Amino acid sequence: MTNTPTPVSLRVKPGPGRLAVTGVGNALLDVIVRDHSGLHAQLGLTKGAMNLVDLERAHQIYAGMGPTVQVSGGSAANTIAGIASLGGTCGFMGKVGSDEFGDVFVHDLSSLGVETSIARAQAVDGATGRCHVFVTDDAQRTMATYLGAANQLRLDDLDLSFVERSEIIYIEGYLFDLPPAKEAIRRLIEAAHDCDALVALTLSDTFCIERHLRDFVELVAHDVDVLLANEGEIKTLFGSSTLESAFEAVEELGVLTVVTTGPNGAQVSSVHGVVSVPAAEVETVVDQNGAGDLFASGFLFALALGADPVEAAELGSLCAGEVISHIGARPEASLEELAAAAGLL
Amino acid sequence: MTNTPTPVSLRVKPGPGRLAVTGVGNALLDVIVRDHSGLHAQLGLTKGAMNLVDLERAHQIYAGMGPTVQVSGGSAANTIAGIASLGGTCGFMGKVGSDEFGDVFVHDLSSLGVETSIARAQAVDGATGRCHVFVTDDAQRTMATYLGAANQLRLDDLDLSFVERSEIIYIEGYLFDLPPAKEAIRRLIEAAHDCDALVALTLSDTFCIERHLRDFVELVAHDVDVLLANEGEIKTLFGSSTLESAFEAVEELGVLTVVTTGPNGAQVSSVHGVVSVPAAEVETVVDQNGAGDLFASGFLFALALGADPVEAAELGSLCAGEVISHIGARPEASLEELAAAAGLL
Repeated sequence: MTNTPTPVSLRVKPGPGRLAVTGVGNALLDVIVRDHSGLHAQLGLTKGAMNLVDLERAHQIYAGMGPTVQVSGGSAANTIAGIASLGGTCGFMGKVGSDEFGDVFVHDLSSLGVETSIARAQAVDGATGRCHVFVTDDAQRTMATYLGAANQLRLDDLDLSFVERSEIIYIEGYLFDLPPAKEAIRRLIEAAHDCDALVALTLSDTFCIERHLRDFVELVAHDVDVLLANEGEIKTLFGSSTLESAFEAVEELGVLTVVTTGPNGAQVSSVHGVVSVPAAEVETVVDQNGAGDLFASGFLFALALGADPVEAAELGSLCAGEVISHIGARPEASLEELAAAAGLL
Repeated sequence: MTNTPTPVSLRVKPGPGRLAVTGVGNALLDVIVRDHSGLHAQLGLTKGAMNLVDLERAHQIYAGMGPTVQVSGGSAANTIAGIASLGGTCGFMGKVGSDEFGDVFVHDLSSLGVETSIARAQAVDGATGRCHVFVTDDAQRTMATYLGAANQLRLDDLDLSFVERSEIIYIEGYLFDLPPAKEAIRRLIEAAHDCDALVALTLSDTFCIERHLRDFVELVAHDVDVLLANEGEIKTLFGSSTLESAFEAVEELGVLTVVTTGPNGAQVSSVHGVVSVPAAEVETVVDQNGAGDLFASGFLFALALGADPVEAAELGSLCAGEVISHIGARPEASLEELAAAAGLL
């Protein structure tokens, strides 16, 4: 964190029955391996990216991995787990298979107190999605995702009453890889607009943006209140060669935007212009997986509680700093305690 | 490790098609939680023990746990994974369910090069067994095990050709909790005797010994060549109040015995009398789960390669030292490299 954190009073908790943030995203189990010798490359995976794979390829990749660790993942779900760790009330909607990995996914969110509306695909429609994660010695993560049941997410699977109860609806860009989910997202956004919930979107991955560029551009231009991205993603979205010109584009659109820039922290573009917030000081960066997801936890939770965007980015940095200090994309420590100790909550 | 390790030439590899050790045991997935606040006690579990639970209780316990980490486990399976990490050829026999946890269990051994003969129970006969592990801040582990499909292990599930090919057959005492497995164990031991394979047994757990005292005593008296235990277990087996009197009992039986004594290392009783071997030096003991299992890896592998029992215990200490330095009961580092660096392989 910054050495002189701004003490903020974020304790404007949502009222009874209200949710600070509800996330909608791919419900995945992470299958993690330490990759000391370039295994991801031998398996033909693009380093640092989320590579979508079909079932056959997923089997081939898994067979090429050594012993693995299985933990709950999924980008928006990680964000929501982080908000729960901050002490926030929150919700999650997604779809898993009728299987053990699905049980684990549901358990891990529910046990944090997250309200969930997680649909179950029939066995024939696919197993719970899984993300094969290769953590290299430079703390980078390379992913090969088999979406499985997550790929079946449909409008019918969403409980729109969550939207009415939420301050912020948080949508994971990866959802655009699911054709039926696009329709669901559109309906979700309408519902959010109807009840004045903020719509937040993460761009998720440069390759994902390239696959769905027009959809993303339209959504950001017309429907998004809060945009989260890293540097590569925001440049890809606007076809910008510099971060400055990308910020000019979002300023024109009037979208509150936060761009994470790894060890350089984050930059927030709001009505106050562009402000930089430093990254948290981390002794050893072990695994960058989840850095963006957990930044979003702090940022969105703080926004939901009425903090200004720069304060929100400071809480985001703190959360990201915790998750990159260990293997796995969900917090191990209590973020609420860490934030309190840092004077941020 | 001891500061002046005995350099030993253990590289008498078993011939082509031969296996150093084949393990038979409960095939389980570990479901691990960090327990900072006595959760295991709130759930009524005896600290440090392996508590057997039925399906209903397993659900109750799981529901009471926070987010968990899923990794392959099972005592003998952990031992075999350790031998594979030492570069040994080895086998494993057990039973899992027809489910994702079963897939993970099989994958994690196969990906290490272990030859497996793992039966699959039909869905109706039970899911893959799971061991809920609570790791407290004192690095102790408390376990609640639902055996599931492992409970269905029968003679028909064993491939006795593994026995003919093995130097050592390693049997997990926990198997005595499965009534049909006892018959299978008896047949396995006969097969081992027929082909001059050594029979090694771990006593597993004091409560397990109490549940099956007569069986264990008879087995050790008549059929076991190598006995592995910790201090509490060996005292329970012989009703001894001191380790010395327990050693007198095994000396009388003429069974090569190694007793692990935690931070005090191990004591080996062989034809040369009782010899102490120090524990490995470990910077921070994080999780004692797997200490005995991995001690057995080094001890049995070295014995299979013709090392003397004290040398074997030194390799056992090295392996145990690795596994207690992190969460989880299987090695993270290459034990072969660690052993080579220590001059033991």
